[in-house]
Amino acid sequence: MINKLCIIGLGLIGGSIAAALKKQKFVKHIIACDRDENNLKIAVKLQIIDDYSLDIKNSIIGCNVIIIATPVNSTNNILATIKPNIQPNMLITDVGSTKCSVIRDVQNILGNSFNKFIPAHPITGKEATGSINANADLFIGKKVIITPNNNIPEDIEFISKMWQKVGSIVEQMAAKKHDEIFALSSHLPHILAFSFVNYMAQHNDAKNWTGGGFKDFTRIASSDSTMWSDICNTNKEEILKHLNNYQNELTQLSKFIKDNEVKDYFANAKKHRDDWILGAIL
Amino acid sequence: MINKLCIIGLGLIGGSIAAALKKQKFVKHIIACDRDENNLKIAVKLQIIDDYSLDIKNSIIGCNVIIIATPVNSTNNILATIKPNIQPNMLITDVGSTKCSVIRDVQNILGNSFNKFIPAHPITGKEATGSINANADLFIGKKVIITPNNNIPEDIEFISKMWQKVGSIVEQMAAKKHDEIFALSSHLPHILAFSFVNYMAQHNDAKNWTGGGFKDFTRIASSDSTMWSDICNTNKEEILKHLNNYQNELTQLSKFIKDNEVKDYFANAKKHRDDWILGAIL
Repeated sequence: MINKLCIIGLGLIGGSIAAALKKQKFVKHIIACDRDENNLKIAVKLQIIDDYSLDIKNSIIGCNVIIIATPVNSTNNILATIKPNIQPNMLITDVGSTKCSVIRDVQNILGNSFNKFIPAHPITGKEATGSINANADLFIGKKVIITPNNNIPEDIEFISKMWQKVGSIVEQMAAKKHDEIFALSSHLPHILAFSFVNYMAQHNDAKNWTGGGFKDFTRIASSDSTMWSDICNTNKEEILKHLNNYQNELTQLSKFIKDNEVKDYFANAKKHRDDWILGAIL
Repeated sequence: MINKLCIIGLGLIGGSIAAALKKQKFVKHIIACDRDENNLKIAVKLQIIDDYSLDIKNSIIGCNVIIIATPVNSTNNILATIKPNIQPNMLITDVGSTKCSVIRDVQNILGNSFNKFIPAHPITGKEATGSINANADLFIGKKVIITPNNNIPEDIEFISKMWQKVGSIVEQMAAKKHDEIFALSSHLPHILAFSFVNYMAQHNDAKNWTGGGFKDFTRIASSDSTMWSDICNTNKEEILKHLNNYQNELTQLSKFIKDNEVKDYFANAKKHRDDWILGAIL
């Protein structure tokens, strides 16, 4: 049970954590910070938070747990802002999609020996944003990855328990491995979707002739641009590596199409995709 | 009203046309042909067809309308097979995703003066296949493009009416323009999805760490490999052009990421995509 929780950044994830922890009665009092006061007022109306503040620094006073749920590039400034009010009994965690940069920020601002920051990444989301889209069931059945830094087992256990309470499956992984894996399974498809939309936007004719395939393929191109710009900035090397290698894959595909030899290539992709989806369901 | 309809190829589209025309009572008798006899038996059990045949040539005897609903590369052979039994009162149409090659096949096999083939393309589908997945509502609210060749207005009108009966919005377009547009809005995203899955399959670690974004982005990679191989073969030039230009787009994106200047690029994509989806709903 969390006595007092502060959520910094009340977007889809921050708002949904608030709603989920309230629903599970795992928290007594939630205070939230956000740049958008209307967003905070909506959350109070929806009763997913108890109180709000526009003053990040003082909002954490008296809190047991602080969740940073902003785009990852802002972690550094947020930590610097709250630093004077951090107390030894506070646990800090985050929900960022890249983890090495967050750990570097913690070390830079709070020092190498600070061990009360537990880096975490819930593998869920959608293109909607803001507390109005908060969903108490967003994390049910979804994985949350914790990439421990120098934390003590009891603190990792507490944050794991928080995520399990809202229905998540918690796994641990090294931050470096996390960033390598998600550059491929998440970051690459997002930037491909953004770039496909931008490429298609250059051709006015085509946009009136799209089907369900286009809609699903490009859904993630409606994601938040700041969040994804921050992900690219903080996991640049891995993302550029995969983007470059994927271009080589496209060159190979071009050759197959030129030679009328693309059927096995497509059949292979279909088999992999069908197997993955089946595996994800079973 | 169609007295007797023959559907050649009872996949998702063929089966769904049968189910939809039955539901709308726009046809008295449907006979279907397919290589898979079990698929045909299922369709009889589901009462979406009245009869079936494994003999394409003779299945069209006595029919008023023939719908070819097979992957586009087989159109040529099917026309050659049914040619001896084609009568002047028969209308032939198709549902292929590329149209220039189909028109070339008609001209090659049936001659330049043959004007009873009305090329059509319903803009719908999903990755499921076979008559077991037939859906009488698949075409409701969906566009169907007719790319007239040398047809008389009455025949175009009849096929248009058939599609309107099952809920579609019929539009006309030149075949060349059709193939240019769909190379971009449909064919390119499909081959990108196939190639992304094949690229990711080379990295075992990543496949266990996918979210909803991956699932939607790759849905179309579960599409039928023969159908998509045929689309690439029959619209090769346009597809290769866009694939090459899209690689240049990715090179530009790489540069933006390197320079930490990707935010506006993503925001632009998000705006386009949000506008399109809104436009498609309104």
